[in-house]
Amino acid sequence: MTPTDTFTAVSRPASNAPRPGGTPAELAGAEHLADGMLRVLSTGPYTFDAGGQLDAVDIAFETWGTLNAQASNAVLLLHALTGDPHVARGSSEEAGWWDGFVGPGAPIDTDRYFVVAPGMVGGCNGSTGPGSAAPDGRAYGSRFPLTTLRDAVRLEARLADALGVDVWHTVLGGSMGGARALEWAATFPERVQRCVPIATTAASTAEQIAFAQIQTQAIRLDPRFDGGDYYSAPATAPGGVAGLGEGPVAGLGIARRMAHITYRSDVEFHARFGRQAQAGEDPYAALPGERGRYQIESYLDHQAGKLVGRFDANAYLIITEALMSHDVGRGRGGLARVLGSLGHIQFLVAAVDSDRLYWPAQSEEMARLLGAGPVEYITTPIGHDGFLTDAQQLAGALRRRIFTD
Amino acid sequence: MTPTDTFTAVSRPASNAPRPGGTPAELAGAEHLADGMLRVLSTGPYTFDAGGQLDAVDIAFETWGTLNAQASNAVLLLHALTGDPHVARGSSEEAGWWDGFVGPGAPIDTDRYFVVAPGMVGGCNGSTGPGSAAPDGRAYGSRFPLTTLRDAVRLEARLADALGVDVWHTVLGGSMGGARALEWAATFPERVQRCVPIATTAASTAEQIAFAQIQTQAIRLDPRFDGGDYYSAPATAPGGVAGLGEGPVAGLGIARRMAHITYRSDVEFHARFGRQAQAGEDPYAALPGERGRYQIESYLDHQAGKLVGRFDANAYLIITEALMSHDVGRGRGGLARVLGSLGHIQFLVAAVDSDRLYWPAQSEEMARLLGAGPVEYITTPIGHDGFLTDAQQLAGALRRRIFTD
Repeated sequence: MTPTDTFTAVSRPASNAPRPGGTPAELAGAEHLADGMLRVLSTGPYTFDAGGQLDAVDIAFETWGTLNAQASNAVLLLHALTGDPHVARGSSEEAGWWDGFVGPGAPIDTDRYFVVAPGMVGGCNGSTGPGSAAPDGRAYGSRFPLTTLRDAVRLEARLADALGVDVWHTVLGGSMGGARALEWAATFPERVQRCVPIATTAASTAEQIAFAQIQTQAIRLDPRFDGGDYYSAPATAPGGVAGLGEGPVAGLGIARRMAHITYRSDVEFHARFGRQAQAGEDPYAALPGERGRYQIESYLDHQAGKLVGRFDANAYLIITEALMSHDVGRGRGGLARVLGSLGHIQFLVAAVDSDRLYWPAQSEEMARLLGAGPVEYITTPIGHDGFLTDAQQLAGALRRRIFTD
Repeated sequence: MTPTDTFTAVSRPASNAPRPGGTPAELAGAEHLADGMLRVLSTGPYTFDAGGQLDAVDIAFETWGTLNAQASNAVLLLHALTGDPHVARGSSEEAGWWDGFVGPGAPIDTDRYFVVAPGMVGGCNGSTGPGSAAPDGRAYGSRFPLTTLRDAVRLEARLADALGVDVWHTVLGGSMGGARALEWAATFPERVQRCVPIATTAASTAEQIAFAQIQTQAIRLDPRFDGGDYYSAPATAPGGVAGLGEGPVAGLGIARRMAHITYRSDVEFHARFGRQAQAGEDPYAALPGERGRYQIESYLDHQAGKLVGRFDANAYLIITEALMSHDVGRGRGGLARVLGSLGHIQFLVAAVDSDRLYWPAQSEEMARLLGAGPVEYITTPIGHDGFLTDAQQLAGALRRRIFTD
């Protein structure tokens, strides 16, 4: 941390009014950090894990609850691939992606814990990413460095410093958020007391890399990709997203469809859609170009449209390739060695029984190498996304094994 | 059949010399049909299932063995999505895609059976497809009709007529070939005595449609797709393939990568590639555009390159959408009704235990609705492609349940 680090309060789109910021010292008690309001910490220059450099990196974050005097009740909550820091509603009018799971009296109880959710570097939710303005005033675009989850963790450590959190009571997340949580434990083992990786892996597998490669290729194939420099203007207001509605939106849409299939299950698709035609459309026509859609096609089109309305394609590339790079054993003597060295941390490994992106077997292996207790299961036919739709199933396990104080 | 139908012998690329053709009458004994040599039947005009029309449709095919005097030993063998009629070597120097499984003394014994393998209409292996010359001399391209598996079956029935085969001893195939086999049984139940659908489904599911949609979109996103009319010249020589190396080869490559993942398994990828970097490449670099590949990426690149060297993108679109349309119950009162009406046919339903494209549960349900005997399993960690790599595991079941005479 440099003495110039400050928090800047920013507004989320529309509903959230700006809040005053403050210096790290002023914020130590964190009383005036309104729940669920986006703020930004300027962390200064940064050299990335794989060699790139930026003169200035901002990390956006939200908080809920109050840091106690001993700074012993801080929980770091890490978002998934296209997630953001807005985990729960708090003072904001906008619903969060884990509303009901995080809040007063919820399984992650913001009456008792000070919950911090940062946006990942390289993304498009307030933290510096490829759509942010470079020193020359243009968006970074193709100049944004290759990012790894270790970069995310190191920059989040600067945020912890600024907030006055030496040691996290718990670091937790699902999917890529779980991978980030595990990377936190491996990078700063002395700063993590408890760790909850949900529906994730200790190292991205060949198949996970394969699914990711296809997604990045679809984006880069789009004629509007322009080598990554497609922005009409950079995101200058923190929390704003550059590149929406421009650039490779069709390619990003294909990437999202691909990813979405891996997030759900055959069983769910069959039950919801079967082979039904979309209302008013006919999948049979004289020419392929004239045919209507099956319901599942319309559904995937809808999923793609939703994402391209809120996410920048370059940010999707950066974070997807960060996830491809994920391997907590890299440069540390391998998975068994590093996971076996974390016995002082209380782990709760959780999985979704129907997950076919992060197979339950990977969680079982992770728990075995960690010497952790039994894997806790979310039971649902929905697949990987069960970590979002059915997180409440982990309430009991969190109470018994993590939030015991 | 019209009186003008004739067989025309054609050469496969390079190694197969042209063979003389003949009229249907001359070919009834089929003595002079050399094994494994591509021939073409002109079947005349055709109106497609979904309404399109062509003035002339050719069906390419190969045969092995000899039709007996009673015409009671004919086996129809149907290829998968990017398969072709060259199932086995025969007189040709080129290896077939089921060599060893089809041949003299093989599980499908060409010393005893007359095996016929047609190329599917809409494809690019000799049968009329989007790369074929339309009456105006240009390739059909975007003008090629939407095709269903029922079109394939009806045109293959014309081939059966020309060959003098009223009733097939057995109709069999894997993956889309199995779907075609089942469609044969449902369309012409009186012409099928035995049927062997392997690693397939009675109706493409929502998830199978979803995977297919992504593939077709990747092809159409490619700036070189040009609405489907990208050919410099049509395929005029039967057996020739238009569009190779031109048109949306990048998009087709992405489609193939996507499909290939569904053909294999996480277990196989993990064992073969893990997280290894490709030799001489480094997946970590300062900028994303500078990074090297993981081995799995190189492997998928290789699979994509192989396919674009032998397959036309429009043909891939037509056949993929045909498979999306697959539903033997459509217009026939539903799956249970049509499958329940085929009790006179001896079925052998087979599946690959690790298949995650055509889940074993689908084969179990199919067998139940057919009232068939137990599903026969290929046991392999490889996934769907086990129907190619481990077909020999079905030899015993074929001997006991199908080739008993």
